[in-house]
Amino acid sequence: MDASLPVTGAWLPGMPAGHRQFLTIAKGHPLALDGGTTLSDVVVAYETWGSLNADASNAILICHAWTGDSHAAGPDGRIQTGGWWDGVIGPGLAIDTDRWFVVCPNVLGGCQGSTGPASPHPADGKPYGSRFPVITIRDMVRVQARLADELGVGVWQAVIGGSMGGMQALEWALTYPKRVRTLVPIATCAQATAQQIAWGAIGRRAILLDEKWRGGDYYDAEPGDGPWQGLAVARMVAQVTFRSDNVFTDRFGRELADGATLRNGFDMWQRFEVERYLDHHGEKLIRRFDTNSYLIIGKAMDLHDVGRGRNGLASAMARITVPTLTMGIWSDMLYPAYQQRQIHDLLRSNGTPSTYIEIDSPHGHDAFLINLEQVGPPIGAFLDSYPA
Amino acid sequence: MDASLPVTGAWLPGMPAGHRQFLTIAKGHPLALDGGTTLSDVVVAYETWGSLNADASNAILICHAWTGDSHAAGPDGRIQTGGWWDGVIGPGLAIDTDRWFVVCPNVLGGCQGSTGPASPHPADGKPYGSRFPVITIRDMVRVQARLADELGVGVWQAVIGGSMGGMQALEWALTYPKRVRTLVPIATCAQATAQQIAWGAIGRRAILLDEKWRGGDYYDAEPGDGPWQGLAVARMVAQVTFRSDNVFTDRFGRELADGATLRNGFDMWQRFEVERYLDHHGEKLIRRFDTNSYLIIGKAMDLHDVGRGRNGLASAMARITVPTLTMGIWSDMLYPAYQQRQIHDLLRSNGTPSTYIEIDSPHGHDAFLINLEQVGPPIGAFLDSYPA
Repeated sequence: MDASLPVTGAWLPGMPAGHRQFLTIAKGHPLALDGGTTLSDVVVAYETWGSLNADASNAILICHAWTGDSHAAGPDGRIQTGGWWDGVIGPGLAIDTDRWFVVCPNVLGGCQGSTGPASPHPADGKPYGSRFPVITIRDMVRVQARLADELGVGVWQAVIGGSMGGMQALEWALTYPKRVRTLVPIATCAQATAQQIAWGAIGRRAILLDEKWRGGDYYDAEPGDGPWQGLAVARMVAQVTFRSDNVFTDRFGRELADGATLRNGFDMWQRFEVERYLDHHGEKLIRRFDTNSYLIIGKAMDLHDVGRGRNGLASAMARITVPTLTMGIWSDMLYPAYQQRQIHDLLRSNGTPSTYIEIDSPHGHDAFLINLEQVGPPIGAFLDSYPA
Repeated sequence: MDASLPVTGAWLPGMPAGHRQFLTIAKGHPLALDGGTTLSDVVVAYETWGSLNADASNAILICHAWTGDSHAAGPDGRIQTGGWWDGVIGPGLAIDTDRWFVVCPNVLGGCQGSTGPASPHPADGKPYGSRFPVITIRDMVRVQARLADELGVGVWQAVIGGSMGGMQALEWALTYPKRVRTLVPIATCAQATAQQIAWGAIGRRAILLDEKWRGGDYYDAEPGDGPWQGLAVARMVAQVTFRSDNVFTDRFGRELADGATLRNGFDMWQRFEVERYLDHHGEKLIRRFDTNSYLIIGKAMDLHDVGRGRNGLASAMARITVPTLTMGIWSDMLYPAYQQRQIHDLLRSNGTPSTYIEIDSPHGHDAFLINLEQVGPPIGAFLDSYPA
């Protein structure tokens, strides 16, 4: 047991907030969720860059991915040294904060300030744990709409996001069609496929297998005694699907880790370098994430289907009429490029202005966080073509 | 706890043997293993079809994959109703048992009759469990060579196998170059890549996470109390990589299982049909396989590298001089077709007669067990071109 591994990596009230701001919604009038339940006193943590102009026409919403958070750009001083989209968002960059008012909220169900399973339940102040309901991407978007109200943003000039962030972008255009002027979904899909659900299911089963998960109520465990091993295995699955065969070969090949050699005999737990890398990423995640949040958000992605309750995929996509820039990555094994081309094709077939750009990167799904020199310029040009 | 789930699915002495035959090797003179340790009294379980001719020139070795066994063809009367390569092996089929003497041994480390972790240790008659050493594909081949000696087979007319079976085929040509006349490696590789090792590592970690695994010494547990959940998660990973995105979409889409509906609310453990399928395969495996065997064989595949101790890949492949038919599958995400083309290209660059055929199937890696109409004929034609 490694006592340096926290039980949860969630940000909790009382911790240094960095640049986060907070908004509490659904006080007195509980937020109705897609699944039929409600949540009260929902907190949204968010960060902003730039200034909203007088007619509130320069606001851009950035939606983060599975383990992302509100800290999309800039120095922070907390756990991370920078933002997850530094190089794309900032003064003079593609999403130019000298020009745009940029907002990035932590999603509902997350663990970096917005209400999630590690947050105190308003009824007793104890963590929600197993009491936290299943949520959907649409629920996340509903919370973001309340934030927009509060910020005085009637219409987002653009809603932009990669991976799960792109799911939110699509749901914004469907749930609040009059509040979105343009869309930029990246490396995402209109509905989760069976294979994507399968990857998610493996992670769920791994966490369930970790007895330290304790059915979701593990927050009073001793340091190191939390469900980090289940989370680590779940993360391993994700990490392999986020990257690519070729890049793994180039980077790790068949190198051994920990100074091991095959000359003096083999051991079952002798690690190859790629295993050390995956173990490292697994152990790192528990320092900044919460295992229940991982489950809840993963399930929301599995449930993602823009066609649910809207007469199916084609019918739903026909309702999106705003100009859209969709980006795919040819080496993406998790959200293959055909899924983004599908979004583009469905939009175009309905006469919606749509552009598709494929990122030429070997890095797999994570290319939208890596190859910023290819991600930024098309977004910048797209934003330029629809001035505030 | 489901008491119908055995602690191990291993075949053990005293159980009905089906068509299995047994040979005990390394009596008195322990078998030296690649890893520096030894094994004594090693049992090889095997099955044969057809008859060895007078000059022993018509013998073909079939090598099975990870969870395969010696029962490659024909009715059995035990757990399985047929063989795993029915349709390829049999009278009048591609591997014609009226003409060839076909042998399929269970691999060392396996659990269907050959010595593996569930087998009794000769010293005390108790299962090896955690005492079973790490083995390699080369160790498996060494045991098969002893079996060939015993059967009077000096030279195999062909060594044929898919996936891990193909690894054994390559190692046969390198370890016993004078004992192989032709080779048929299918959907396999000359060395495991970092991504392949990563998939294996995830399974290992999942099994380690299952407290019922008990460090590998679980054989005296009560029924249902064995490490079947860890094995099931490991199997889920494998099962996704064995198939393909397209086929999962066609077969499962976003259907829900167990009569569930999203209309009356969501539940974290509500299953999509693809999850039910994966759970089913996981639970099925423990009825016919052993968790420690899964670990041991998986590690052997991760260690697979024909170049190890042979001055690297190119140098090793240059030592294979026998005519080779290599087959790949375009939709294989686990052993992508480039790996089989690499085998073909390396052989051809050294002047070794080599043919490469790509199976046109959407089924992914498992196509070599599914699309027999494409697998059989090229093998039949290849065998015809090198008469016994």
